[in-house]
Amino acid sequence: MDNDTTYLCTTDETSVTIRGKDLVTELVGHLTYTEMVFFLLRGRVPTPPETRVLDACLVILMEHGLTLNTLVARFVASAVPDQMQVAMGASLMTIGDTFMGTMEGCARILQAGVAADGDPRAYCAEVVAKHRAEKKAVPGFGHRFHKPDDPRSPRLFEIAEQAGAAGPHIAMLRILAEEVDRVAGRHLTINATGAIGAAFSDIGFKPEVMRGLAVVSRSGGLVAHIAEERESGSARLIEKLAKQNVQYRDPPAE
Amino acid sequence: MDNDTTYLCTTDETSVTIRGKDLVTELVGHLTYTEMVFFLLRGRVPTPPETRVLDACLVILMEHGLTLNTLVARFVASAVPDQMQVAMGASLMTIGDTFMGTMEGCARILQAGVAADGDPRAYCAEVVAKHRAEKKAVPGFGHRFHKPDDPRSPRLFEIAEQAGAAGPHIAMLRILAEEVDRVAGRHLTINATGAIGAAFSDIGFKPEVMRGLAVVSRSGGLVAHIAEERESGSARLIEKLAKQNVQYRDPPAE
Amino acid sequence: MDNDTTYLCTTDETSVTIRGKDLVTELVGHLTYTEMVFFLLRGRVPTPPETRVLDACLVILMEHGLTLNTLVARFVASAVPDQMQVAMGASLMTIGDTFMGTMEGCARILQAGVAADGDPRAYCAEVVAKHRAEKKAVPGFGHRFHKPDDPRSPRLFEIAEQAGAAGPHIAMLRILAEEVDRVAGRHLTINATGAIGAAFSDIGFKPEVMRGLAVVSRSGGLVAHIAEERESGSARLIEKLAKQNVQYRDPPAE
Amino acid sequence: MDNDTTYLCTTDETSVTIRGKDLVTELVGHLTYTEMVFFLLRGRVPTPPETRVLDACLVILMEHGLTLNTLVARFVASAVPDQMQVAMGASLMTIGDTFMGTMEGCARILQAGVAADGDPRAYCAEVVAKHRAEKKAVPGFGHRFHKPDDPRSPRLFEIAEQAGAAGPHIAMLRILAEEVDRVAGRHLTINATGAIGAAFSDIGFKPEVMRGLAVVSRSGGLVAHIAEERESGSARLIEKLAKQNVQYRDPPAE
Repeated sequence: MDNDTTYLCTTDETSVTIRGKDLVTELVGHLTYTEMVFFLLRGRVPTPPETRVLDACLVILMEHGLTLNTLVARFVASAVPDQMQVAMGASLMTIGDTFMGTMEGCARILQAGVAADGDPRAYCAEVVAKHRAEKKAVPGFGHRFHKPDDPRSPRLFEIAEQAGAAGPHIAMLRILAEEVDRVAGRHLTINATGAIGAAFSDIGFKPEVMRGLAVVSRSGGLVAHIAEERESGSARLIEKLAKQNVQYRDPPAE
Repeated sequence: MDNDTTYLCTTDETSVTIRGKDLVTELVGHLTYTEMVFFLLRGRVPTPPETRVLDACLVILMEHGLTLNTLVARFVASAVPDQMQVAMGASLMTIGDTFMGTMEGCARILQAGVAADGDPRAYCAEVVAKHRAEKKAVPGFGHRFHKPDDPRSPRLFEIAEQAGAAGPHIAMLRILAEEVDRVAGRHLTINATGAIGAAFSDIGFKPEVMRGLAVVSRSGGLVAHIAEERESGSARLIEKLAKQNVQYRDPPAE
Repeated sequence: MDNDTTYLCTTDETSVTIRGKDLVTELVGHLTYTEMVFFLLRGRVPTPPETRVLDACLVILMEHGLTLNTLVARFVASAVPDQMQVAMGASLMTIGDTFMGTMEGCARILQAGVAADGDPRAYCAEVVAKHRAEKKAVPGFGHRFHKPDDPRSPRLFEIAEQAGAAGPHIAMLRILAEEVDRVAGRHLTINATGAIGAAFSDIGFKPEVMRGLAVVSRSGGLVAHIAEERESGSARLIEKLAKQNVQYRDPPAE
Repeated sequence: MDNDTTYLCTTDETSVTIRGKDLVTELVGHLTYTEMVFFLLRGRVPTPPETRVLDACLVILMEHGLTLNTLVARFVASAVPDQMQVAMGASLMTIGDTFMGTMEGCARILQAGVAADGDPRAYCAEVVAKHRAEKKAVPGFGHRFHKPDDPRSPRLFEIAEQAGAAGPHIAMLRILAEEVDRVAGRHLTINATGAIGAAFSDIGFKPEVMRGLAVVSRSGGLVAHIAEERESGSARLIEKLAKQNVQYRDPPAE
């Protein structure tokens, strides 16, 4: 598209138009937040099954306790207490290639496989072999804490299936999982980001926007962490623990 | 609360517990994203009227075209194209005391007035007089672009009333508006952030978390702006316009 | 100044002009980094005493071990390992009203006192009395870790005095310190940010840019923390300590 | 190194120790800011030639007028006027793979070539051929604005040579430049980030920390931009230009 054009939104003195619809008369009160996120990104209102899957994905990722991500929010909130958005923004930056980023990688593999339209098992076997040859983990598999299975993944598949929104990408992820286990000689869980990569693909999202949706999801959880930090002051306790447990030593020479 | 305690979330190998409920069996598939944000922050599932108002507020704030906020997202996305979360985080930092921040200020006035439980008109007259004496604008009134009225405000009141979720804070904001106009001698619109400050107050949110909810709302809009920027490359055009229109001159002495 | 004007920099195909000077022939190789920061902000090259004080202030603030500030850098670097600038940016946001911000507050008091040009002791007594009445700490005094004295403050005064750059603001801070101690009935240290607020004032910086100079100083320290984090992986250890020591409990009702 | 260890800094009630030296008695007043950045990162005080090159690199990158980078700083400063560090942090995030990032890529090529210790011209020819085959630009060459030559590059080489700090990496970059021109059939400038990648390599910096040093450099320039933005209000003018020149159109269907 042209660099002098936007398809998203325009305002005048008495109205706000978003992707061809009037915000006040056609969107507010008619769409939920989740539907509006879909509408703004895709240009059409989602179907109820699509909404159900998107809601499930956004709920699943919102909260996972004290992790690097929420600790950053608490630390920044402790240092800049009156500017909640600063703590949120700093924390959301951590949703990158390591943390939640396997969503994108897994979705890329699944979307390429579905688009190739060949034998899914042969495709998955090739993907696993290629990662093994490069000594890389297949994105979307394994979890630091959840063993033997990330409980969120089968639940998400169940919701997608009940809604009638499970399609070829979830199907391919199941085959990929069998190949991953077969080659590893042991069971590796499909993790939540892998499952979401598949579910997002089945409702038509491109890999490039998925981490943006993860940011949306997490933002909801951070408000609660920062509100709690203001009451509890945990950041100062953790700072103290860090000082006690990571000790200074005189450095070796360069 | 104690600094060694969190009430939000814990995980073990096979489950995620959020505020006393099991994520997999009790939350995902049962709550929408909007309901989950409320639940995580407040510790109880919202009623349908509360959900309806929260959805309306989150939809209203999501998108307002090319503003400082979305331009920051586009500029950072242009410079760091593969890390969407960085552009989102940087942009969300702008939701501060100037941009959307009047929500908090207006809510504080309304919540103090309702808590005081006296004559609302006398309270509002006093608030207006005090701001006038300090030559400050009453937060929640006036808008740079929307004149004579921000169309989003009456629509939000309508939704809250139809849902049965309009309470004393919206009522007080209407009285405050009359006093603002009376003292100004002309009509000043209740702007969207003022209206949301009242609606959020009526469903029980404290002023301190409101800008966090604005961050949640905006995050949904930014995904679309960044996805569009990748296609259009508007940031480079605007950079060029800035160079052409803000010109260098040799500085005067210190 | 006009909104279509900048006094800072312009470029053309073969040159870069900064505040009236040619970068290549007049600045690079002629000014140190510290002198260039001063020149860009103030429009003139600093005198050697000014440079000496600015260098001392920038060196003093650069590093203070594992604090909220450096922990944020380490956590974000752990999550987004290939984008060092993201960890630096997120960490630098913490240099706010709580962390290093007393520099600004102390400088405002000193600059107002010097500008008033009255009896310094009467002014300082009044400042202390006013803060006591409002139950606020006088900015620039007291330190969490350094007792009875922050060792950085007397050293900075010594450097400023030897350079001939100690002026009325450092003098007034000494008087203010006497008044603080007298009213408190015990000794409170002038902390490093208080001392720097005075030293910066004596070389002509306004309070509004001081935290920006603190950001410059800290940025130098963060590079080393992030480089070390990549080797050591301390962030994951601290995350584990946080999980072990901040424990989940089922929440009380709203 | 172990995750329970830091070699950087420890503090106690009366002292600050940085990499084995006492901050107050051995560092402040003895080292410039530039020397301290080197010392903290490398563990030894730089030689005068190393300091001279590091200063030159930090001065060269500090300021380049109104670019995406400084515009982000101005926009955020306009929205969050009292928190200069937020505008700085958001702006510094843009120093990524696109903006200044070629420094790292160029340094990696040069350091690998020097380490290989073979025929430099054969190595450079191979590098250029490989990039050509992959249709990628060789990092460190070409500039959007500076033609035919980025004036900063020869000046930096001159400073390094005069200081006696020009070594095999600058030498190899010159050979690489000849090969780039030969294969392209036209002259491409060595840009400032390419030149700095070579100069930083000759004074012993690893590619992984180079963008961190670019952040340090830029942070100094941003203070001046934000201070100026507060006076001029250019962000609002540019926002207006963006609205006028990037126009809304109803979107095509998905």
